[in-house]
Amino acid sequence: MKGTQLIKVHHLGISQSERIVWQCEELNLDYQLLRYDRDPVSRRAPLEYKALSRLGIAPVIEDGDLVLGESGAIVEYISRRYANGRLIPGPGDAGFVDFLFWFHFANGTLVPSIMMDLSALRLGLPAKPAATKAQGSRTDGAYDAIEQRLGAAAYMAGDEFTAADIMMFFPLTTMRFFAPRDLTPYPNVRAYVRRVGERPAYRRAMAKADPDFAPLLS
Amino acid sequence: MKGTQLIKVHHLGISQSERIVWQCEELNLDYQLLRYDRDPVSRRAPLEYKALSRLGIAPVIEDGDLVLGESGAIVEYISRRYANGRLIPGPGDAGFVDFLFWFHFANGTLVPSIMMDLSALRLGLPAKPAATKAQGSRTDGAYDAIEQRLGAAAYMAGDEFTAADIMMFFPLTTMRFFAPRDLTPYPNVRAYVRRVGERPAYRRAMAKADPDFAPLLS
Repeated sequence: MKGTQLIKVHHLGISQSERIVWQCEELNLDYQLLRYDRDPVSRRAPLEYKALSRLGIAPVIEDGDLVLGESGAIVEYISRRYANGRLIPGPGDAGFVDFLFWFHFANGTLVPSIMMDLSALRLGLPAKPAATKAQGSRTDGAYDAIEQRLGAAAYMAGDEFTAADIMMFFPLTTMRFFAPRDLTPYPNVRAYVRRVGERPAYRRAMAKADPDFAPLLS
Repeated sequence: MKGTQLIKVHHLGISQSERIVWQCEELNLDYQLLRYDRDPVSRRAPLEYKALSRLGIAPVIEDGDLVLGESGAIVEYISRRYANGRLIPGPGDAGFVDFLFWFHFANGTLVPSIMMDLSALRLGLPAKPAATKAQGSRTDGAYDAIEQRLGAAAYMAGDEFTAADIMMFFPLTTMRFFAPRDLTPYPNVRAYVRRVGERPAYRRAMAKADPDFAPLLS
């Protein structure tokens, strides 16, 4: 940390900004947590949260004069600037390629695919009409791929816990609060979610970030 | 390159895999381009393309035994493994933070937001009914943010062309073939698209990747 300046983590309740709180706990960084609750009826972010960034999306951090959004960017920023790249394997590390794939897959494919399902659901469309079949099956295909991966490795990138786990965990857990999914067909995913959910840093993060929310670990 | 092994770039016509062809041209890498045309009616990827990866999504590269998908992962892989990180600023470089934001924003927010608009369009919903207003306005907000950014800097990350431009260019250009958007309200975006579209590497890439398609540079 530069001088006494702390990273401010603006956390929207029950949102992907839990990743940033968790990362700070994993890295034992000093940080200041600022919580914002969703509207209890619409579940939308409050206006004061939306005002933090031009696009009104979570997460957002402040670091001195810097205001930065976008989970993937924030996770890379924190690891590279404040932890010598910890949790981010480089080209010389085992798991480099798997790390890259799953790290980018989380927000590049998995989350958008679930958002599409959710959007269809909210529009009152049947679960898988012809027009959205390709989207529904993309999330199914993603789950199949994750299940297979977790049958071959303990963590997304291989033997070691990395930022790819931090990125992938939210869609496999908390995001199911909005887009329910039964994990019964995915025993490897279930075991992974249970095991990673026991990490002390995750427990500390969730207790601080969403004290009234029980993490979805099954 | 290891020995005589070439990276194989599997390119689905008129898709975000154009980014990988472009990156290889920018870096002057030797690579083997394999093209696949979309079905002329459904515009879907052919089965042989879908068979390349479990999720059937573009782009896909092969590098020896490795098969890798997900644009962001591939772009990072190629720069870090074969070009000493060229096009990817590190913590000590100017533009590090802006690079991170726009690189991740491209596939983490902008492309999914346009996909949501496109999905509403295909379902025959009016352009912005109440239920999809938030989604429509997210793409609008994204364009406003990009317009403002390009009023302050020549490239997404600052003074230098980086992989953030490679990631952002597809949604600003080719993706408008599927989800039309009039760039008239965005003069900075128009100037950027025209200027970057004149890069010799982009022209070579598009001529090879989509020879029958005129790049959408206005």
